[in-house]
Amino acid sequence: MEDSAPRRSRAAFAGLVGVSQVLGLASVVLTGVWMGHFRGGFAWNGSKQEFNIHPLCMVLGLVFLQGDAILVYRVFHNEPKKNVKLLHGIIHLLALIMSIVGFVAVFDYHRAAKIPDMYSLHSWCGMTTLILFCLQWVMGLMFFLFPVASAWLRASYLPVHVFCGLALLVMSVGTSLLGITETLLFNIMPTYSKFTPEGVLANVLGILLVCFGLVLGHLMTREEYRRPPNPEEEALSVHFKTLTDGGSPTTP
Amino acid sequence: MEDSAPRRSRAAFAGLVGVSQVLGLASVVLTGVWMGHFRGGFAWNGSKQEFNIHPLCMVLGLVFLQGDAILVYRVFHNEPKKNVKLLHGIIHLLALIMSIVGFVAVFDYHRAAKIPDMYSLHSWCGMTTLILFCLQWVMGLMFFLFPVASAWLRASYLPVHVFCGLALLVMSVGTSLLGITETLLFNIMPTYSKFTPEGVLANVLGILLVCFGLVLGHLMTREEYRRPPNPEEEALSVHFKTLTDGGSPTTP
Repeated sequence: MEDSAPRRSRAAFAGLVGVSQVLGLASVVLTGVWMGHFRGGFAWNGSKQEFNIHPLCMVLGLVFLQGDAILVYRVFHNEPKKNVKLLHGIIHLLALIMSIVGFVAVFDYHRAAKIPDMYSLHSWCGMTTLILFCLQWVMGLMFFLFPVASAWLRASYLPVHVFCGLALLVMSVGTSLLGITETLLFNIMPTYSKFTPEGVLANVLGILLVCFGLVLGHLMTREEYRRPPNPEEEALSVHFKTLTDGGSPTTP
Repeated sequence: MEDSAPRRSRAAFAGLVGVSQVLGLASVVLTGVWMGHFRGGFAWNGSKQEFNIHPLCMVLGLVFLQGDAILVYRVFHNEPKKNVKLLHGIIHLLALIMSIVGFVAVFDYHRAAKIPDMYSLHSWCGMTTLILFCLQWVMGLMFFLFPVASAWLRASYLPVHVFCGLALLVMSVGTSLLGITETLLFNIMPTYSKFTPEGVLANVLGILLVCFGLVLGHLMTREEYRRPPNPEEEALSVHFKTLTDGGSPTTP
């Protein structure tokens, strides 16, 4: 009976991971349906069809893949940390490539359609998020995959890396919602208030993205879902604990 | 010299609290300037001037006051917990009243101008946030100010309450950004892309709100800014630790 609470906790964790994947995949599919069915499909020719690649890449890259890259630490918490780190870095690399394709698509479309760049709040938030995401990926690579930094520096940077990762996911979700609102008001402003199917579908997509962010946030911050400490690994990096008191990472 | 790290940490904390207040107040002032100067000022007469009360109340109530209500636990961490709880509840009540006034303003304006309600993603997110905010306030009141729940229930609910509080702040910031984008596209769509002063001011407001959320998020999740544990208080409630293993809150 003593074991029942951790078992309940593991079952809840597994259930929530499942829910997060359903929410994430549903968001990607809904973005595809929205752009494919309501907005004329996809092409790489400077037309609106090229713009349509932008939302799909951003939701797939900066939201779904970024979220899953963060989640691997919790899902594979019994695997050797080195392997999980590698997986974390690879999924983030895929997310980065996908996001850059999405960015190129929208800038390319703007150039062809002679639409100014970088004037909207969506673009300001999106550009900030992508630049910080690149920075976070490079810093993560330097600190944790090819450890050029000292153990103390790594341990000090870890909580910053963890916080920034979650903050970037939240910023990606927020920027996506801004993109949804912009796209709707640019295209269907006169009919949006009549609960037209496209408007409702895009709103539902927004709510799914919010739910994805909330479930991920819960899974990442809940105490009992944390990777259990491993003394050998602790010598290399320390989880979530800020060691700014000058102590060594082996003596938290 | 041993004391230098905690002192540095306290100085960083004080500095960041200062930054958060500057960001929060600047957001409220900028919303006032935007609505007062660019959008025709304020009035309670069913006109667009009544709508203008909505953004001001929401930024002041659901963002700035809600953020500060959360922050009091960190700022007054040496005060008796009972007093801090009371202050937390009172600021949240003010935030709630302000938000309800803001909601009434926009529904009243919609009715007078014959604009449909609740069709946009902004309205869906905003209504969800306000309903959950009310629920969170009532639950907080029942669990922590007039403790009708058992100590075990309170201890189990605390991490949920803390997570939901931060999630609601993030949702409030996100919803505000959606509101900014909607207001700009409804009113200045033809000139927004020309970097018109109103558009730039509103974008800057959005970025300030994001920064406010990020600083608050950092202050609330950083390990060393946590309220130090107090054995007497621990008997009543447990900080951030989920006690789902059936243990009593006095034996975390």
